[in-house]
Amino acid sequence: MSKSSTVTVREKPVQDVASATAGGLIIRGETFVVQTDQRVEVIDLTNRVMEFVRRFDIREGIVSIWSMHTTFPLFINEFQTALLADIKRFLEQMVARDAEYLHNDPNHSDCDRMNADSHLRAMLLGHNLTLQVSGGEVVLGQWQRVLMAELDGPRARSLRVQIFGVS
Amino acid sequence: MSKSSTVTVREKPVQDVASATAGGLIIRGETFVVQTDQRVEVIDLTNRVMEFVRRFDIREGIVSIWSMHTTFPLFINEFQTALLADIKRFLEQMVARDAEYLHNDPNHSDCDRMNADSHLRAMLLGHNLTLQVSGGEVVLGQWQRVLMAELDGPRARSLRVQIFGVS
Amino acid sequence: MSKSSTVTVREKPVQDVASATAGGLIIRGETFVVQTDQRVEVIDLTNRVMEFVRRFDIREGIVSIWSMHTTFPLFINEFQTALLADIKRFLEQMVARDAEYLHNDPNHSDCDRMNADSHLRAMLLGHNLTLQVSGGEVVLGQWQRVLMAELDGPRARSLRVQIFGVS
Repeated sequence: MSKSSTVTVREKPVQDVASATAGGLIIRGETFVVQTDQRVEVIDLTNRVMEFVRRFDIREGIVSIWSMHTTFPLFINEFQTALLADIKRFLEQMVARDAEYLHNDPNHSDCDRMNADSHLRAMLLGHNLTLQVSGGEVVLGQWQRVLMAELDGPRARSLRVQIFGVS
Repeated sequence: MSKSSTVTVREKPVQDVASATAGGLIIRGETFVVQTDQRVEVIDLTNRVMEFVRRFDIREGIVSIWSMHTTFPLFINEFQTALLADIKRFLEQMVARDAEYLHNDPNHSDCDRMNADSHLRAMLLGHNLTLQVSGGEVVLGQWQRVLMAELDGPRARSLRVQIFGVS
Repeated sequence: MSKSSTVTVREKPVQDVASATAGGLIIRGETFVVQTDQRVEVIDLTNRVMEFVRRFDIREGIVSIWSMHTTFPLFINEFQTALLADIKRFLEQMVARDAEYLHNDPNHSDCDRMNADSHLRAMLLGHNLTLQVSGGEVVLGQWQRVLMAELDGPRARSLRVQIFGVS
């Protein structure tokens, strides 16, 4: 059994900016970079996503947000200092950092980050949000914020945002 | 540190009905309202989504369902009275309602709903489903139902459904 | 109260292959079948999804992957033997197989698979991934793999893959 993880290789790396059109359909993808500061931290991306959507002349469509990292999930919740502390504590209780994991054991794994907890926590939150665009803006409820959880930082993280729609 | 949550403001509110076309592509979005009856309750939306899809002349495409509320998640499961009771008990065990949460503490939070449990439970289930449409109907397995969990009711809840495809 | 689960019935079954075009937009859906070998098992679908996307002349777009089964979820994680063992143990600890569930009780349920644990575990992971396509390939980070968890096998499982984009 290999101690290594399978690598995902594209023929060409993802371009920072990509676009296509067909009839009135516009597709545009871009890469966002986020610098995180702590091992576990929640970041609010809502304004950045809203600004991205407003830059294009797309009235109705969808916008996909994709985290490029296994330990950097995406989710929706309220953004409030108190609730963020509750979320952090909940993740730490649900998945203990110091339990025994094969992924953290050099006899079974060549990963030296000791981050099995980060992988398990991220798996519960997910890596993708597909939001609707309507009237030229993202569709979100009053208290809904587009959040990312750094679970194995600090690091520079990438995410890809793609808008797909018609004007 | 603020006790308040960040508000998400669009320039214009989401319209109840929005549509766009480009070439043969049709996009149509609508708002559904669901009245819930209990604090914690699972609701089957499958028939309503199927009827929505059948109203349009769209043969192949996608349909996005988006909950407009942080404490009202969307997920797929079997719809059976016994299993729904198991789901409810599981959510209550995994996230205790009466644990100590900063979000429920007036010293740290201006939220008076005492609903930290609802926020944490919803985060695990997610707020969006993007289903495929093929042959003019939603693609679902025999036992798959489109479900929403009311986790802080009873309330009137909104969700937005958007179909995107070609005839 | 019924012991049975609601059945989802389409007017016509999902076709194995379906396609549509409009202007330069191409939509193509296909069914994948996966034979699983164990009750609980994680399967790496990444290469199969990458090959599917490369078969079409679609440069920018999205690809949706949908599990057709309630107890066969889809998620993103690293694919490493050690981590897969950690994931399996985590799911088994978080949702005990032998706890008391109404879904496993013949007095309340006509399901004879005794698989309430499978339903609860799947609900946490989700049944759908909507990935971006850019430059003719799926957008994934270096360690991200498209994974499915068999949670009530062994069985023959179906999933539906739909690509949607322009050349």
